[in-house]
Amino acid sequence: MPDKPDPTDAIPPPTRFPRPAVGRFSLYYRELYRLLDQGQSHINSKQLGSIVNVSPAVVRRDLSNLGTIGRRGVGYQIDQLIDQIGGVLGSGQQWQVVLVGVGSLGDALLRYRGFERLGFRLVAAFDLDNQKVNQTIGGVSILNAETMVGKLAELSPDLAIIAVPAEVALDVANELVAAGISGILNFAPTTLRLPPGIAVVNVDLASELQRLAFSVQNL
Amino acid sequence: MPDKPDPTDAIPPPTRFPRPAVGRFSLYYRELYRLLDQGQSHINSKQLGSIVNVSPAVVRRDLSNLGTIGRRGVGYQIDQLIDQIGGVLGSGQQWQVVLVGVGSLGDALLRYRGFERLGFRLVAAFDLDNQKVNQTIGGVSILNAETMVGKLAELSPDLAIIAVPAEVALDVANELVAAGISGILNFAPTTLRLPPGIAVVNVDLASELQRLAFSVQNL
Repeated sequence: MPDKPDPTDAIPPPTRFPRPAVGRFSLYYRELYRLLDQGQSHINSKQLGSIVNVSPAVVRRDLSNLGTIGRRGVGYQIDQLIDQIGGVLGSGQQWQVVLVGVGSLGDALLRYRGFERLGFRLVAAFDLDNQKVNQTIGGVSILNAETMVGKLAELSPDLAIIAVPAEVALDVANELVAAGISGILNFAPTTLRLPPGIAVVNVDLASELQRLAFSVQNL
Repeated sequence: MPDKPDPTDAIPPPTRFPRPAVGRFSLYYRELYRLLDQGQSHINSKQLGSIVNVSPAVVRRDLSNLGTIGRRGVGYQIDQLIDQIGGVLGSGQQWQVVLVGVGSLGDALLRYRGFERLGFRLVAAFDLDNQKVNQTIGGVSILNAETMVGKLAELSPDLAIIAVPAEVALDVANELVAAGISGILNFAPTTLRLPPGIAVVNVDLASELQRLAFSVQNL
C-alpha cells in the first residue's frame, strides 16, 4: 500500500463504473488483501469469482474495465490488483472521518478495527451526554456536540458518520453540510434530504433484516 | 400482528419484485409507518417520492405492482399501503432471530430498538466469553456458544445475525445452517460460501465507507 499521497496527485475520478461494480470492487479488494496477507501472489478469475460468489466472466469484465488482463495459466498479480482497485475506491487516500452520536452503535463504530486499513481515520466523535464527553473510545476523543461547529472548522474532516436518533439526524446532517462535509454515512433510520452535491450512503439495520426475510420467503 | 405462522400457511412468494424495488418498499414502509404515527391518513405519489428521494412515477409503478392505485385528489390510504407492503416484506409475520457474537457490534444490535416493530424478535444471543454468558442485554439472554447446537434445536429460530470475527464466521454459519436456519445477516467482513438455499445479506461497515468515498470522489 502506498504512503499517503499528495491530494493534488489524486487519480482522476473514474466515473465510468456502475454502482454494482463498485460494490464488487470493494469485495474483491477485501478478499485480495486477505489472500496477500496469507502469502498468495496470484489469482485467476475463476478463483476470485468463487470467493466472492460471482462468475469468472463478471470478474474478467470488471478487471478489464480497470485496464487489467490476467495472464493465461498465471492469472492476475494480487498486489497490482490491490493498487488498481484501491485507486478506484479512493483507498490510496487518507480520509478523515468524524462520528456524531456515541450510543451503543456509535460506541461499536469507534471500536471497529476495519476502517483504518482502508484509509479511513476517525479523528473525533461528538455527543451531548456529559458522561461521555472527554472520554476516549477506540483511541478517539468524544467531544461536546455543542462545540461541533467550531471543531469541524478546525478539523475539516472529509466524511461524517451519523449514529444519532432519527428525530435529530437531519439537523445534525445540515450542520455537517454547513461545515463543508460532502459525504455522510447515515445509520439513523430516516431519509436525509440534503442539497445536491452531498453524497449519502444509508445503512438501516432493520431494513437489512427485512431484505433478508424477503429473500428467505423467496428461496 | 399474527402469531408465528405455520410455514405451509405462508403467503405465496412474490417473486415478481426486482431487488431495487424491495429496497424501496422497505423505505416506503418505514416512512409510511412514521406518517401514520403522526396521524396522517393519506399520501400521494409526489409526497411519498419526495420523502424517499425517488420520482412520483417510480412510486406509482412500485405501488401499482402491489395492485394499489391512488385516487386522484386523495392519494393512497396509508394504513392499506402499510398492510400491503408489509405483506410483501414478510413484516406481517413474526420472525425469531438469534445473534451470534456479543462484541461491541453485537451489543449494539441487542440494544437496537428498530427490529421488533418490523416483526423481528431476538430470542437469544450466543458468545464464548464467560463474562458475558448468562447476562441479559436489551432483554435478550446471552447463552454459552458451546451449547449453541442444542439451544438452536430447542428454539428453532428463523434467522440469525452473525457478528463474530471474520476468522470464525464461516464455522458459525455452517453450524447455523446445520441447525436448519435458512437466512443469515452477516456483519463479519468475509464472504460466506454456503450451500444453495441459504439466504445471506452482508453488511460490511468498512465497505459502506468505501462506497461513500467513491461517491464523494465522483460528485
